[in-house]
Amino acid sequence: MKAAAGPGLELRSVPDPTPAADEVVIRVKATSLCGTDSHIYQWDDWARSRIRPPRILGHEMYGEIVETGRSVTAFKVGDLIAAESHVTCGKCFQCRTGNAHVCKNYTILGIDRDGSFAEYVSLPEKVCWRTSPEIPPELACLQEPLGNSVHTVLTEDVTGHTVLVTGCGPTGLFAIAVARTAGAALIVATDVSEYRLELARKVGATAALPAQADVPGRILDLTDGEGVDDAFEMSGHPSAVHLCFRCVKNAGRVALFGIPNREVPLDLANEIIFKGLRIYGITGRRIFDTWYRLGGLFQAGLDIRPVVTHTLPLEEFRTGFELIHSGQCGKVVLIP
Amino acid sequence: MKAAAGPGLELRSVPDPTPAADEVVIRVKATSLCGTDSHIYQWDDWARSRIRPPRILGHEMYGEIVETGRSVTAFKVGDLIAAESHVTCGKCFQCRTGNAHVCKNYTILGIDRDGSFAEYVSLPEKVCWRTSPEIPPELACLQEPLGNSVHTVLTEDVTGHTVLVTGCGPTGLFAIAVARTAGAALIVATDVSEYRLELARKVGATAALPAQADVPGRILDLTDGEGVDDAFEMSGHPSAVHLCFRCVKNAGRVALFGIPNREVPLDLANEIIFKGLRIYGITGRRIFDTWYRLGGLFQAGLDIRPVVTHTLPLEEFRTGFELIHSGQCGKVVLIP
Amino acid sequence: MKAAAGPGLELRSVPDPTPAADEVVIRVKATSLCGTDSHIYQWDDWARSRIRPPRILGHEMYGEIVETGRSVTAFKVGDLIAAESHVTCGKCFQCRTGNAHVCKNYTILGIDRDGSFAEYVSLPEKVCWRTSPEIPPELACLQEPLGNSVHTVLTEDVTGHTVLVTGCGPTGLFAIAVARTAGAALIVATDVSEYRLELARKVGATAALPAQADVPGRILDLTDGEGVDDAFEMSGHPSAVHLCFRCVKNAGRVALFGIPNREVPLDLANEIIFKGLRIYGITGRRIFDTWYRLGGLFQAGLDIRPVVTHTLPLEEFRTGFELIHSGQCGKVVLIP
Amino acid sequence: MKAAAGPGLELRSVPDPTPAADEVVIRVKATSLCGTDSHIYQWDDWARSRIRPPRILGHEMYGEIVETGRSVTAFKVGDLIAAESHVTCGKCFQCRTGNAHVCKNYTILGIDRDGSFAEYVSLPEKVCWRTSPEIPPELACLQEPLGNSVHTVLTEDVTGHTVLVTGCGPTGLFAIAVARTAGAALIVATDVSEYRLELARKVGATAALPAQADVPGRILDLTDGEGVDDAFEMSGHPSAVHLCFRCVKNAGRVALFGIPNREVPLDLANEIIFKGLRIYGITGRRIFDTWYRLGGLFQAGLDIRPVVTHTLPLEEFRTGFELIHSGQCGKVVLIP
Repeated sequence: MKAAAGPGLELRSVPDPTPAADEVVIRVKATSLCGTDSHIYQWDDWARSRIRPPRILGHEMYGEIVETGRSVTAFKVGDLIAAESHVTCGKCFQCRTGNAHVCKNYTILGIDRDGSFAEYVSLPEKVCWRTSPEIPPELACLQEPLGNSVHTVLTEDVTGHTVLVTGCGPTGLFAIAVARTAGAALIVATDVSEYRLELARKVGATAALPAQADVPGRILDLTDGEGVDDAFEMSGHPSAVHLCFRCVKNAGRVALFGIPNREVPLDLANEIIFKGLRIYGITGRRIFDTWYRLGGLFQAGLDIRPVVTHTLPLEEFRTGFELIHSGQCGKVVLIP
Repeated sequence: MKAAAGPGLELRSVPDPTPAADEVVIRVKATSLCGTDSHIYQWDDWARSRIRPPRILGHEMYGEIVETGRSVTAFKVGDLIAAESHVTCGKCFQCRTGNAHVCKNYTILGIDRDGSFAEYVSLPEKVCWRTSPEIPPELACLQEPLGNSVHTVLTEDVTGHTVLVTGCGPTGLFAIAVARTAGAALIVATDVSEYRLELARKVGATAALPAQADVPGRILDLTDGEGVDDAFEMSGHPSAVHLCFRCVKNAGRVALFGIPNREVPLDLANEIIFKGLRIYGITGRRIFDTWYRLGGLFQAGLDIRPVVTHTLPLEEFRTGFELIHSGQCGKVVLIP
Repeated sequence: MKAAAGPGLELRSVPDPTPAADEVVIRVKATSLCGTDSHIYQWDDWARSRIRPPRILGHEMYGEIVETGRSVTAFKVGDLIAAESHVTCGKCFQCRTGNAHVCKNYTILGIDRDGSFAEYVSLPEKVCWRTSPEIPPELACLQEPLGNSVHTVLTEDVTGHTVLVTGCGPTGLFAIAVARTAGAALIVATDVSEYRLELARKVGATAALPAQADVPGRILDLTDGEGVDDAFEMSGHPSAVHLCFRCVKNAGRVALFGIPNREVPLDLANEIIFKGLRIYGITGRRIFDTWYRLGGLFQAGLDIRPVVTHTLPLEEFRTGFELIHSGQCGKVVLIP
Repeated sequence: MKAAAGPGLELRSVPDPTPAADEVVIRVKATSLCGTDSHIYQWDDWARSRIRPPRILGHEMYGEIVETGRSVTAFKVGDLIAAESHVTCGKCFQCRTGNAHVCKNYTILGIDRDGSFAEYVSLPEKVCWRTSPEIPPELACLQEPLGNSVHTVLTEDVTGHTVLVTGCGPTGLFAIAVARTAGAALIVATDVSEYRLELARKVGATAALPAQADVPGRILDLTDGEGVDDAFEMSGHPSAVHLCFRCVKNAGRVALFGIPNREVPLDLANEIIFKGLRIYGITGRRIFDTWYRLGGLFQAGLDIRPVVTHTLPLEEFRTGFELIHSGQCGKVVLIP
């Protein structure tokens, strides 16, 4: 947990949680590290402004229900559960019109309330997602970040389409795997790291190119001069944003998921308007549309196993954060 | 060719066609038999009312351009070509708004003008579809009927969805293969013929059930009691139409492609309205959206080879029609 | 209230309701009669199988909150409220994916729980819809049935479209008014009753035609031979269902809301498949998408006042049911 | 015509055009000035790089067919015609999939071929749009720029929605009028010019605000703190682009039509991604979907008359360009 303001985390004994009436207590079987956790670990400006210690981090998780609050009806002890990490208000315009993923009042597991880097966590019934026992814990805990990629890729059809994915961190790799399972015709992936490009090939990229290569040229070669139907920006790098707009064909689609850390100057006329593009800003998962799609993708054979490069006991969390810092990893999963 | 009114076809020597200004002449490399051809062969009521002999049949085809009319610009001699069989007017409301597949004035290759059961056929440039040389002729000629199935399945998303396909004739088999490539979670197929159910398993059905089985019950078992997301009716049997409406979940989708030969009494309240369904009537292929998707599906690994159960020389067309009549076949391809 | 099994209703003194924790008590200011209420009043087969007396009817309502349960947060005493009459479970597939209007477990106000033909009614917070004080009570109570029509008409775009509405009962009249406000180019309406056709003209029909007229011919005249873009079936008459399929153009849309009381034999090939139609089964209102649209339509100038032909004190409910039975009315509103 | 490179235009006698086989000759009854024409008149950098004199300008027009080429079938002498100004290739991916408005090879009337600032103009049959004689010439010639606004506003539903329009030049004014006819709940318009804001009020803006006002604050007041559902950027000003992203609600829509003359630095995270927006780049008109919608909007009562502030004889074109330069005008129509 983040015991006090400042860098680092500590492992502490805390009382086991008791569930509120509409909550369940879950014994955590697997939980994974996210870039957000890394920001909090390092205690950067964003973390300082957002987190109020003490706080148990962790929002990517999977476990088994061990206790249910008295008004819980949809779940029972023994159910295997992953969690939607956004606890939405249910009462705003967005929640009332099928857009709870951009709820105006949501709180986040592991940031605004105690999360899953723990043996037990208490969650509202309404964020629980029943998970097939056929999915092993180290993959089941990845459904939350995987859902970001499912949301991104499936904002429109991708079947039979040519695709560009910029950024081969975990969400980029997931996007490649989803596009592959959904029957994309061609998947071009880019990253600055050869380590990550190699992972991209393993999850199904047709061509994994270093960002410094002539990506537009290669894409024209691979698409009979057309450009790609869809581009998914998963890196947050300004140059990757431009690359997406440049490589997508007229009337194509760009979905933006990666978060740039500064403003990106866009030539709106040539990058967007004259091309007649559709652009989607993506955050979180459609609740629970994305989760159902995700469950179906696993049944269809989605294979994200190559993305999990490291599995560690919970107490070795420091090693996990070091791996993330190094960039020489895909997903790091912790087992409490 | 259908030389005169009456059952049967004859093989005749005819002058090689010369192209009009906007046409190309194609040397046919492969052409396949369709149920429509079988109706004309048998000279049933519909054929009598529609066909004016002499007429060369055949609308599912693939070949190589050997001559181009003088105003042709998009294709050249040597190009490998399949054909959209609907020659649309280009000037009606539907053609002008992206719905040329339901053009009010279209004519059909092999019905309203001479078709592909021949060594050479002349076609308007605008129905030509350039085909990758990597697709072998006996599959390349199937793109027209395959397009019907692509159109049916991809009217909406199918990725991660549970699916019912009723009817495992060629278009049903194609629908299964397309849904499999597009990442469907579960594909239940039904037919009255065990021969065809076996083909269904080969192209990717999760469960291939005889029509007389308790299909609704099996579907509830396989979908946690939900029913399927999407149902594709490819048989034209009234009982299959009812099965689709019964097995699809509330807010689901039904696409109707099979042509019933009589009226189907529907309980609109319980089969459609209270379930809040979306229903699509499907005819032909979106021009050329469906063709592009189809090309992409081949790149994504679509495998329709098991559907081609028989390949014959053109002169053995009678054997082909007998096979279709027997029901003990998938697609029958003729090689001129 | 329906005090006992059998025809008719009685006015009885009952204790004022007390709200559960998540409920509000509303003083009813206006409530309107629906065809469903008429079935229950007459105690037909459907009513006998569904209603368990004693039961207070009424599900179209408007009033003011006078008391709130202790966990209510989104509403307060004094708020002006209409009610979504479907109390949905919130936990099924449909509820979790933005399709709560076809929830598998919903209960209905005035049928499964006591309704609004009363001075006070207690409702769950989650079905409450805050209503602008600028809308007078006799219109505000109509939002529930109006929502059915908004849902029907706005399943797709209607702006600039030519439209057919079959059936000019209240939901048909509402559909006309909605299409008018949404900028339909042409609205043809049909009914068997001249009384209702006159109301259709008042709410904005371009042409209101008796059902026995040559409606297809008139529509071809009015649409340059094209047929209409969209057809809305609001009557439940089999002949009107056929009329919709016949008059809509190729690639058009048909939305079915009216409930036929028997099976309708459809020529699927010619009525749906060869035309390439999209068909929507409509029930209830999208929760709360439809309500927000409805609020916006009032701001845009939607005028449904001509539909309210009679306003009566609650105790004259028998007169109201006689009016409905006679067919010589639009909506009948009761004021408690 | 632009007789030679350099500022200004001249009126010259030229031979009347003769139509190619697929063309019609039109006697121009009205033609209007566009910002593009003004750039060419002033001979700015863009004009210098794009226009090769001699060239007759003019692409917004209406007239009567006086002669038809020999292969023309859909139109005849006497037909009243407006023109889609983009002459598309018909053979590229975009043209073949219903996206001809972003054809990769299109040429433009009055820029790449002689246009309508003339007594007669020859046009391909395929760009002709038959126009109702009920629309007067000075409005009928505006359908091309009006179509830009129809395309922008109707990329999605606008009925019952709250709307922001930034920029009240002609296309902004048209967007307001279209949103009004389509049943928008609330239309907030902004511009720097009080003259144009007054026009905005005339065509249906609910609130017309100077750009320097607290527009976000006013919008929150007018929308119960929600922000608008849809924002239409019609000005090209970077500050207006930011205003659209700021004022639209989470899960809302932004359509960008105005062309900025420099790069716009965007905070993608807060302006687009975290809000879960959908963004459309808009150019030209969907061919011919937009034109059909536009025809229907006129039938529905669309009133764009206040936008035409000046009607001049063709020979007074210099006055027209001066008016445009001054900003004290809406649309300027020339009558040959």
